[in-house]
Amino acid sequence: MENNRRADSIWADLLRIRAEAPLVHNITNYVVMNITANALLALGASPVMAHAEEEVEEMTAIARSLVVNIGTLSAPWIAAMFKAGAVAKRNARPIVLDPVGAGATTFRTETARSLLDQLSPAIVRGNASEIRALVYDERSTRGVDSAHLSDAASGAAEALADRRHSVVVTSGAIDLILSDGAAARVFNGHPMMAKVTGMGCTASALAGAFAAVNPSAHDAAVNAMAVMGIAGELAAGRSPGPGTFVHQFLDALYLLKESDIRDRLKVEEP
Amino acid sequence: MENNRRADSIWADLLRIRAEAPLVHNITNYVVMNITANALLALGASPVMAHAEEEVEEMTAIARSLVVNIGTLSAPWIAAMFKAGAVAKRNARPIVLDPVGAGATTFRTETARSLLDQLSPAIVRGNASEIRALVYDERSTRGVDSAHLSDAASGAAEALADRRHSVVVTSGAIDLILSDGAAARVFNGHPMMAKVTGMGCTASALAGAFAAVNPSAHDAAVNAMAVMGIAGELAAGRSPGPGTFVHQFLDALYLLKESDIRDRLKVEEP
Amino acid sequence: MENNRRADSIWADLLRIRAEAPLVHNITNYVVMNITANALLALGASPVMAHAEEEVEEMTAIARSLVVNIGTLSAPWIAAMFKAGAVAKRNARPIVLDPVGAGATTFRTETARSLLDQLSPAIVRGNASEIRALVYDERSTRGVDSAHLSDAASGAAEALADRRHSVVVTSGAIDLILSDGAAARVFNGHPMMAKVTGMGCTASALAGAFAAVNPSAHDAAVNAMAVMGIAGELAAGRSPGPGTFVHQFLDALYLLKESDIRDRLKVEEP
Repeated sequence: MENNRRADSIWADLLRIRAEAPLVHNITNYVVMNITANALLALGASPVMAHAEEEVEEMTAIARSLVVNIGTLSAPWIAAMFKAGAVAKRNARPIVLDPVGAGATTFRTETARSLLDQLSPAIVRGNASEIRALVYDERSTRGVDSAHLSDAASGAAEALADRRHSVVVTSGAIDLILSDGAAARVFNGHPMMAKVTGMGCTASALAGAFAAVNPSAHDAAVNAMAVMGIAGELAAGRSPGPGTFVHQFLDALYLLKESDIRDRLKVEEP
Repeated sequence: MENNRRADSIWADLLRIRAEAPLVHNITNYVVMNITANALLALGASPVMAHAEEEVEEMTAIARSLVVNIGTLSAPWIAAMFKAGAVAKRNARPIVLDPVGAGATTFRTETARSLLDQLSPAIVRGNASEIRALVYDERSTRGVDSAHLSDAASGAAEALADRRHSVVVTSGAIDLILSDGAAARVFNGHPMMAKVTGMGCTASALAGAFAAVNPSAHDAAVNAMAVMGIAGELAAGRSPGPGTFVHQFLDALYLLKESDIRDRLKVEEP
Repeated sequence: MENNRRADSIWADLLRIRAEAPLVHNITNYVVMNITANALLALGASPVMAHAEEEVEEMTAIARSLVVNIGTLSAPWIAAMFKAGAVAKRNARPIVLDPVGAGATTFRTETARSLLDQLSPAIVRGNASEIRALVYDERSTRGVDSAHLSDAASGAAEALADRRHSVVVTSGAIDLILSDGAAARVFNGHPMMAKVTGMGCTASALAGAFAAVNPSAHDAAVNAMAVMGIAGELAAGRSPGPGTFVHQFLDALYLLKESDIRDRLKVEEP
């Protein structure tokens, strides 16, 4: 896809999100709940956070997509993720899986792999070491922020995309989006994004909003990553450090104009 | 009450909160804990968050009010809410109930109704669909952000205020405060408040601070909603988007002057 | 130590943190997870939050320090704190204990004391009433924000430092750092820091980062408190209220220069 058509697709999705305010059900981690809810609101979507086993099925049933993030997981939350995931799957609602910290502990790696198995997520988004951990048996020693080079992870991403029919997003300085049969690289973004907690989780949440309005999971993933990157660039230009950056980022999402997208978009789609 | 006397009442409460820094015990949701704690501090109150069954009774016993918010509830938290509520009730400390998402799932609706039954909260604050869900059997399909017109909810609010002797606050573009025998409409506020997560929860938390210093739950509720709305207006004038808005809002609460209240207050009390 | 050598020590630690990005494992409270993670990132460290019993041991094993904070504790989290603490102790990784709200409820006081007993933390940081509660049997009636005068707490701190061989930090307008054989007072800081939730918890988290790179727990504690105070002063000069303050504080941590430290440092070390 050339950049002009990609920009058309992003802008069309954004207009739909703003018009329809799709309900995105998040079962996510404590650290990022506030920022991801605010990012979804700033984008135009309608976030809901709910994790009790007693209610997740009902909540997922009224949502248009489900975002599952294992950043601060524990046993009751995992049970809820499977329950909610089963409903989303049954109702053909797109699921986004964020395997935060996969590779850092056995518990996370195994939970992430089981979720991948059972939920057949439309989109999986992680950094390079998390994506690798879904496929290869290797331990990360850098907690949740580690990142091998994207290139080193692309083999894993390919394997996943192939085997699972999920769209696999490997985030980094360059975001790699791989599907069974399509690929894209998003060059938008800014190094300041790595100095703020939850930017990766926010990308996953936004992917949930795009997947709610765009029937192509591949396009939803590319569009979400491009919007993240462009909003990040706009915010970085207005903030000297990561504290002010976060709020400029939310403002940028909220104020995003078609020209911001057309002027800044840098996606490579062979 | 005419606007001048209402402004007197608000300002007197605010001075007491700033002077006494009343301890407000919050059992609230993960998404908004940080923003509600910061809003209570900015207002001049002293927030404490505690939810363990082992300690909530002792914590409530030293607090001057209790705020119960079901935004991300689960079974152990519900048990704590009932325990803390019993202590507050026994000690005649005002309770504020925020039935976040009532109507969206059976679990939330039933929990909210039981809390209403058992705790006899001084103040119940929700958006229109949440207030309706406490009274009527209807399903919301919009998660936690849904809002029918305020007018459509006023029947439910009246029924509640009547039957329960709670002050019922229905938040919206216009806030409706109904008590057994009194009514007020607060016109202050700004649409940007709907683009930030937790503004409703923050209103409930502030109502807890006002109820700690004002023996009239009706006045406490009206004063809290007016201060929310005025701080929101001041903040919106200084922020292009929801990211910067939140922090301008906290600054506005902290810096609020008597003239801000007198100049901006728009309350209708027949 | 004279101020010049203290500034050398701080700057050397800061350069190491920025170069090595040490992984700091936090088992902390819901209210402050986001701000403490962001503060660690802004400083240059690498935060990870994990609390599930199934994984804390593995996570602590790859971390360079462990921060245990009881701000919103419950039984499963306490079990995880003990497990993680045992691993850190076995691996000789420094532990920082933040006894949030000790003295406010029996549950917190007893948990804090048991953690102190079993974990032998390198650093304990609290406000005056929390530090007193670890030693004396008295009830606080101000939740988590109470603070007797620092001087009144110094007896308790001395007793702790002596008996436990922990470095004891009593935070307040003046921070008192007491070790078995050394003492320091940090005069840096700003009253606005008390109007933001989680500044104490953030100090504990930063102490975890400094302890990860500095083998002297005493120096790590002093350096962390000095950096907190200096960043607070820089931020207060740029923000009218507590909302904007938080983000200026994070920016200040991120942008901190050697000259900021040399020009502003006010530590008394007899």
